[in-house]
Amino acid sequence: METTIQHPGSILIRTTGAFIVDDVLYEDSSKIPETSDIALPFQTHDISHIAVDIGGSLAKIVYFTSNESTEKIDDFIQFIHKLIKFYKKKVHIMATGGGSVKFYDKLKSDLGVDVTKEDEMECLIVGLDFFITEIPNEVFMYTEQNPMQFVNDRKEIYPYLLVNIGSGVSMIKVTGPSTFTRVGGSSLGGGTLWGLLSLLTDASSYDEMLDNAAQGDNTNVDMLVGDIYGTDYNKIGLKSTTIASSFGKVFNNKFGNSSEERKSHFNPQDISRSLLYAISNNIGQIAYLQAKIHNLKHIYFGGSYIRGHPQTMHTLSYAINFWSQGEKTAYFLRHEGYLGAVGAFLKRQPTGWGRRASSSSDKTQEES
Amino acid sequence: METTIQHPGSILIRTTGAFIVDDVLYEDSSKIPETSDIALPFQTHDISHIAVDIGGSLAKIVYFTSNESTEKIDDFIQFIHKLIKFYKKKVHIMATGGGSVKFYDKLKSDLGVDVTKEDEMECLIVGLDFFITEIPNEVFMYTEQNPMQFVNDRKEIYPYLLVNIGSGVSMIKVTGPSTFTRVGGSSLGGGTLWGLLSLLTDASSYDEMLDNAAQGDNTNVDMLVGDIYGTDYNKIGLKSTTIASSFGKVFNNKFGNSSEERKSHFNPQDISRSLLYAISNNIGQIAYLQAKIHNLKHIYFGGSYIRGHPQTMHTLSYAINFWSQGEKTAYFLRHEGYLGAVGAFLKRQPTGWGRRASSSSDKTQEES
Repeated sequence: METTIQHPGSILIRTTGAFIVDDVLYEDSSKIPETSDIALPFQTHDISHIAVDIGGSLAKIVYFTSNESTEKIDDFIQFIHKLIKFYKKKVHIMATGGGSVKFYDKLKSDLGVDVTKEDEMECLIVGLDFFITEIPNEVFMYTEQNPMQFVNDRKEIYPYLLVNIGSGVSMIKVTGPSTFTRVGGSSLGGGTLWGLLSLLTDASSYDEMLDNAAQGDNTNVDMLVGDIYGTDYNKIGLKSTTIASSFGKVFNNKFGNSSEERKSHFNPQDISRSLLYAISNNIGQIAYLQAKIHNLKHIYFGGSYIRGHPQTMHTLSYAINFWSQGEKTAYFLRHEGYLGAVGAFLKRQPTGWGRRASSSSDKTQEES
Repeated sequence: METTIQHPGSILIRTTGAFIVDDVLYEDSSKIPETSDIALPFQTHDISHIAVDIGGSLAKIVYFTSNESTEKIDDFIQFIHKLIKFYKKKVHIMATGGGSVKFYDKLKSDLGVDVTKEDEMECLIVGLDFFITEIPNEVFMYTEQNPMQFVNDRKEIYPYLLVNIGSGVSMIKVTGPSTFTRVGGSSLGGGTLWGLLSLLTDASSYDEMLDNAAQGDNTNVDMLVGDIYGTDYNKIGLKSTTIASSFGKVFNNKFGNSSEERKSHFNPQDISRSLLYAISNNIGQIAYLQAKIHNLKHIYFGGSYIRGHPQTMHTLSYAINFWSQGEKTAYFLRHEGYLGAVGAFLKRQPTGWGRRASSSSDKTQEES
């Protein structure tokens, strides 16, 4: 281990044969398994680095342990301290995400260990490429009939669009293992959903917001084409059930003069569902438009927004399918929130994944 | 007048020489004049029809009067009744917008007059074409230095993209006076802004919401790139002042456990500005992407969302300019909310505007 620490980058992470450790075998395809640890069966060397991805709202951590389980924890820094203690302070931190730039000095001095910053977009792509090509039963398509249809042994990987939904949204065109461009994004992302719902409902966690959404009926809040027209608007192909205006039923004098009075007419479940639909539909539409402009057939959705929530995946899939008339496909990942952290983790090695993207000097910037 | 009523379509509306009646001459280009009546100086025949555009949230009305002023009114139906009384019940109503379909029977029976339904998209285009080609000092570009730079005597009108922002958003590609296709839209429109702000603030009207927005600072609510990175993210060209996540600063346990407690940490002005930015930016981005896909340089923004509000026009203009790197131009209109109603009004005549789009049998549907 000493050697490892003193010569960063000299450990080979053996990704061959990697697989997801499922607690149960899932014969029932309608049941979505929980995200689980990834096993690296051929990894014999110790790995004494930790990868952290510090975003706008969440921080993610990836580390290697020799079949030892570690309790889930809430506090990120405490957890790193604990890990460092476990490694006897001989760890190296690979840090990515905006927070790794902002808190670089603090991380380094507070933790007293070496910290290497890695570019956020590069790490996302390294992580995603790893999941696509090395981990079976990781990438899947969503339909209501089959919410987790795994896509293994893909032959054509590139080009693709990665839509990473964290607090905000980044859309990255990837044309090869080391070639990518951030083509766009949106400020309407997870942070918008969480922020607005924390002002509109008493939900205390994102999972509670998603539970609310699962029970809600958005048509009490949204104005549908049918609410305006009384029927379909056939001439332009809009069904009466299409959402014409998200929250379009809310602004009405009959609901009172204060925000509290007005809010009493709507329930938190319906509000949550409407907003989840609005944000997800919007991301789906922009993703489709970007994929069309850049001629990309495959769209991967990553980031901590989705959390395996069926309605979210349904809405994103539906949007891609609706707008592209079936020409483009939406893919999801079981480790969707860990692309950046896993990418940073993998970058600390002499060959393989880490090297592939770190040699990406030819990528261009076309922030359009 | 009897003849007119018994032979619908036999009145020629003389649009030649039409102009906007401004209350003041505006030498000061930084002052935005109020929307005003349009004079038809060569109109000698009486016009005894009324055009109504009934949308999801608002209804608009257009009628002709021989230099008689009429008080502004709040109640739409009352107003039509009054007008009908004024015309001695001898009027014909040209109705457009979704509400004209939904309320057709009711309009006809309650008002006891003839009602002709006209297609919403067709009327929008007829109205816009009229404003672009016939009304001087109607179409303008917005910059902070010159908030109303009029665009007169345009030589190339077609093709263009019309982005009509009402409760929801419709985007229409127009390639000639009678050729158009609705290429897309968004459910995040005026109804979303009004609906969410009526639950988040005590503002009682849309104008009050816009006044709030004008006084707000969105950076208390939005998470900027600088809040995450502590600096610019130069590698992908994102400035520290770019909004990474709208409402991204709001979801935080430190703000309390109930929506009311949390809301007390934010002021309604900042919330209003953040949401106005979020919705306007999003529409601007989708408009740009559609304009890029359909190769359209000119983008007109219509609908009752804008209301001459400088920040809204600034945000829409900025979005188009930012994404297109100056290649596409955003245009605004002083009668932005009346495109459909004016279009319906103009359709009741034997030649000219009304006929141009009513002959549009060759338009295709490519709801994509």
